Amino acid sequence: MRVLITGGAGFIGKKLAARLLERRKLLERELTHLTLFDVGHAEGVPADPSLHIATGDITRPGVLFDLLRPGYDAIFHLAAVVSGAAEADVDLGYAVNLDGTRHLLDAVRAFGGKPRLVFASSVAVFGGDMPDVIADDTHLTPQTSYGTQKAVGELLVADHHRKGFVDGRSFRLPTIVVRPGKPNRAASTWASSIFREPLAGQEAVCPVADTTAMYILSPRRVVDALVHGMELPSEALGMTRSLTLPGRTYSVAEMVAALERVAGKAVTARIRWEPDAPIRKIVAGWPQRFSTPRAEKLGFAADEDLDGIVHQHIDDELGGRFVR
Amino acid sequence: MRVLITGGAGFIGKKLAARLLERRKLLERELTHLTLFDVGHAEGVPADPSLHIATGDITRPGVLFDLLRPGYDAIFHLAAVVSGAAEADVDLGYAVNLDGTRHLLDAVRAFGGKPRLVFASSVAVFGGDMPDVIADDTHLTPQTSYGTQKAVGELLVADHHRKGFVDGRSFRLPTIVVRPGKPNRAASTWASSIFREPLAGQEAVCPVADTTAMYILSPRRVVDALVHGMELPSEALGMTRSLTLPGRTYSVAEMVAALERVAGKAVTARIRWEPDAPIRKIVAGWPQRFSTPRAEKLGFAADEDLDGIVHQHIDDELGGRFVR
Repeated sequence: MRVLITGGAGFIGKKLAARLLERRKLLERELTHLTLFDVGHAEGVPADPSLHIATGDITRPGVLFDLLRPGYDAIFHLAAVVSGAAEADVDLGYAVNLDGTRHLLDAVRAFGGKPRLVFASSVAVFGGDMPDVIADDTHLTPQTSYGTQKAVGELLVADHHRKGFVDGRSFRLPTIVVRPGKPNRAASTWASSIFREPLAGQEAVCPVADTTAMYILSPRRVVDALVHGMELPSEALGMTRSLTLPGRTYSVAEMVAALERVAGKAVTARIRWEPDAPIRKIVAGWPQRFSTPRAEKLGFAADEDLDGIVHQHIDDELGGRFVR
Repeated sequence: MRVLITGGAGFIGKKLAARLLERRKLLERELTHLTLFDVGHAEGVPADPSLHIATGDITRPGVLFDLLRPGYDAIFHLAAVVSGAAEADVDLGYAVNLDGTRHLLDAVRAFGGKPRLVFASSVAVFGGDMPDVIADDTHLTPQTSYGTQKAVGELLVADHHRKGFVDGRSFRLPTIVVRPGKPNRAASTWASSIFREPLAGQEAVCPVADTTAMYILSPRRVVDALVHGMELPSEALGMTRSLTLPGRTYSVAEMVAALERVAGKAVTARIRWEPDAPIRKIVAGWPQRFSTPRAEKLGFAADEDLDGIVHQHIDDELGGRFVR
């Protein structure tokens, strides 16, 4: 079983790689080869004879053709520039997020073999004039270039699936909390910062009101979903190849309360409330509540509670300890 | 007022050009320059000092940059390969229908001026697991590459509108009946043939059952809609830049009955009923019934009846006479 992860140097790519190397199996076959592809070298991944690191520019078709030529049985397509970057640099966003996906699908088609493909889409495909609760059949009206490019990717995956070039499926990821690492250019970056920085003894800035609600999923559950989504029989998804992953909606106040329950008041005192009008405006345009019966029926699951999400971050990223 | 029509050698492009030259005004400004762009030379268009014919390959970005460099105030983007061709030749369909739209929007962005843009989308963006009646907010689940490419075009137009590069709006065209000319590679080509060929004294083949229903609009009404859609104030469309044009759903039996009422039994006797399983299967997957309150509120209108559609064809294409 040969597996490719694009965006393999990103935090989800690396966590997914670690999970696959731990399982040693995918689709009931032995994992013999796992390639992590990204624009930069994947750092901090376990040394493993079946693990291969590849670097290259996804915006260049030749790079993808070279990458795909050896053939893969399963592809996780996670590579993307994040929302803030895609919004600021229109050319870069379209080149990586749209053309990159085109190149990948063109290469898959060129070399045949009909691999399975999991495309990481995003709840950013929703926006604008939305119902109060986003349902499985709500139409896609993205209000960011990133959301537009993810919506286009879903359409391309579905068309290439229908034509028999790939066994494709697209899963819309909620905002991932707690994302490890540093703040990035996503307008949602504070949703992880308010947990991550205080637990590390640093100050975090929260630019939104504590009544702001976010639809979130933890890193472990995202990796669960990607693997589960890859292993779902194709028929389970039928003609509609996209679905929104189950998450849970919490207010910022609930997030801070969970952090306080787990880590104490000294930790939450490190959150500085500093309203930022442009960020509030972007976040206010995001969908907050979802109904995902289709995904739940197919065995996808949200985190059970916020406290568990805080504990998961402390266990997985901080070696079980935090700065009190 | 400088106006560009891509796909200007196609039958809608030419009818739209004739209408604009007749009106001499668009958006309350005098029409001074009208360019018809297509891969082939537009034939049979009125000689007019303000009319310019341009040819070129829309799949090559440089061609679109050269075309757009002089600047346009209003662009009708009709250029596309039809459904049958896009399905048979995956590369051609994506190159013309997706990359062509990208190149046009890139060129618009490069040269600024924020022109108005009307994108001709299609009801082929719907398909698969659909509700019985397609509503204004039904999600797009195309089951053809053509429908996929049109859905992607809508997303691109909406994103470029939101970013302020263009004042964009996308209108989903019903099947156009009666299309003049010869049968083409569209799986719906029979819907025009069953009127057009018998009225011209020729035999037509109907590959579907007479209970088959189609959602249709006449050429005149399509041109009305494109002009009306161009002239709608931007605010009228709000955040959702796409809408389905109102049409009417008729069964093949109703179409044949109308042809008989207008032209007589000798004409309808020229329809040969010859079931074609692959075409029936494609057509069975198409949406048949639509509810379009948003477009109706904005002043778009369907044809009043089928008899009028038959008369329109006889008047506009046959000089008022048909072969009895």
